[in-house]
Amino acid sequence: MPELRKDPVLGRWIIISTERGKRPTDFIVEDFESKGGFCPLCPGNETTTPPEVLSYGRPGDTPNRPGWSLRVVPNKYPALVIEGDLDKEGEGLYDKMNGIGAHEVIIESPDHNATFTQLPPQHMARVFQAFRDRIVDLEKDPRFRYVMIFKNYGKAAGASLEHSHSQIVALPIVPRMIISELEGSKSYHSYKDRCVYCDILRQEIKQDIRIVCQNEHFIAMTPYAPRSPFEMWVMPKRHASSFITMNEVMFESLSYIFSEIMRRLDACIHNVPYNFVLHTAPLHSASLDYFHWHFEIMPKLTSIAGFEWGSGFYINPVPPEDAAKFLKEAKI
Amino acid sequence: MPELRKDPVLGRWIIISTERGKRPTDFIVEDFESKGGFCPLCPGNETTTPPEVLSYGRPGDTPNRPGWSLRVVPNKYPALVIEGDLDKEGEGLYDKMNGIGAHEVIIESPDHNATFTQLPPQHMARVFQAFRDRIVDLEKDPRFRYVMIFKNYGKAAGASLEHSHSQIVALPIVPRMIISELEGSKSYHSYKDRCVYCDILRQEIKQDIRIVCQNEHFIAMTPYAPRSPFEMWVMPKRHASSFITMNEVMFESLSYIFSEIMRRLDACIHNVPYNFVLHTAPLHSASLDYFHWHFEIMPKLTSIAGFEWGSGFYINPVPPEDAAKFLKEAKI
Repeated sequence: MPELRKDPVLGRWIIISTERGKRPTDFIVEDFESKGGFCPLCPGNETTTPPEVLSYGRPGDTPNRPGWSLRVVPNKYPALVIEGDLDKEGEGLYDKMNGIGAHEVIIESPDHNATFTQLPPQHMARVFQAFRDRIVDLEKDPRFRYVMIFKNYGKAAGASLEHSHSQIVALPIVPRMIISELEGSKSYHSYKDRCVYCDILRQEIKQDIRIVCQNEHFIAMTPYAPRSPFEMWVMPKRHASSFITMNEVMFESLSYIFSEIMRRLDACIHNVPYNFVLHTAPLHSASLDYFHWHFEIMPKLTSIAGFEWGSGFYINPVPPEDAAKFLKEAKI
Repeated sequence: MPELRKDPVLGRWIIISTERGKRPTDFIVEDFESKGGFCPLCPGNETTTPPEVLSYGRPGDTPNRPGWSLRVVPNKYPALVIEGDLDKEGEGLYDKMNGIGAHEVIIESPDHNATFTQLPPQHMARVFQAFRDRIVDLEKDPRFRYVMIFKNYGKAAGASLEHSHSQIVALPIVPRMIISELEGSKSYHSYKDRCVYCDILRQEIKQDIRIVCQNEHFIAMTPYAPRSPFEMWVMPKRHASSFITMNEVMFESLSYIFSEIMRRLDACIHNVPYNFVLHTAPLHSASLDYFHWHFEIMPKLTSIAGFEWGSGFYINPVPPEDAAKFLKEAKI
């Protein structure tokens, strides 16, 4: 059983993930190629993954068979496990709880060689729809407080499988980063009675030096204080605290802008490894005036080294105004 | 001029480091080998670095010549610059300040091939002495609020030069990570009237399942909630909030324990990339009852991927009790 442990000074949680490798000799760098060409996410290999929890596009009702256009399955090597009670206990001055949670993989396309960036916008819209459908389903489990959705692309960004996929982790706690965002935006709101993200949107549209592109519903921009070169945020123009408010029209609109910025990024730095993360309101919360859901996209171009570990702040060699300019001017 | 910018929601600062590369094409992976064998940190090449601010071991008073056993020089490509006023200003709802600071390199040994782990403890003690001497000197500059000292070993951990060195960054703000530690430990102290780190030491000595080694003055242990496999902390047994309280006897004692754990780590995972960071009290602060200086050593064995970026918490496949056992049993 994995274990969640809390740092007694910082309140930072970690997962001791016992379902994964653990001896010193296990830390040998793995290569995509080392799998001998077998891909557990490809059509025809459905029985090598745990049984699917969602699929789109397959005619009829025969799960775990080919014919799907998108498939969601539990992670075979989960960081957290779904079975068990959420026991919380102390250990002297330390605190821990069982590693209860869900860890799922969204197989974005049956095509092994299709990257997320290359997906047609209509197909990308289905990926976003799967994000929402899984949040809605996982919210039914009262043990869960937050659903993290993210993507690791490229080995340098932490991906261990080549076939295009994103990940879902349902957690029994709200992660510290989200708590900080909620606290920061709540404090701004209590002072100004406005959403800080809505204010950011207004200022960015007025200044127009960090916007990469926009459409009727969404804006894509480089943030004012980016941790990484070419970091981008995608935000809905209309205030909404949770991604579950998304509808069919919004999925389409989001996928057009997301597809464009990913192709622009690829045109600037071909095949760059990246992570993206959905920031949305905690589960079981009413609509929040002060929080505004968004995606953060972080290309993997700089190392997290001693300075960042020790300080929690980041050194970025590319001003976001320059990054926005390069992205806007890139030929796609 | 570099710029410090603050994220308006999280209060997280970043450095826009204009002294470094900035075009998309600049992000080509650099190799140690690409320098063509020339090392600016080697004896004989003293004039290729900015003039030294400290050196040990050179007879006579001819700076920037060979003969030294340790040398401290300003970084040629600093993240922050020493000249200028500390202007703070707003930009709409955003906040920024000039990137004023010091960025120095400690060249730990004249021997290009000596690693920190292999330094004789007597020599390692001089490295720690240089850390203290530089903090004491930089504290005289009223613009600085904190001195970060850290080491990046290996390319995967962010090192860009092979010759063994550590780094010093003097900052005009106290970094968020240190503020979190100060707040967490202060809150514990106000409730229990005891230092949380002293309590951790007592519990660890009693449990004896995470201690790697100890001597009269120091303890080396794997922390209860480690972010990374084989993460270790080194703490003085006697309460002290600042590293500048260190004396000659303590430098020797620290170097024996530090040398031992680094050799144990190397015996477990040969030549593993790592970062270490000194956590000490802010400059110009009196002795603090609630804070306890320490080193944190983070082997680079797992990636920071989407999950960690989005949540601020960490997945670690190695329980610290197992890591401590492997380290203790390693043949050195």
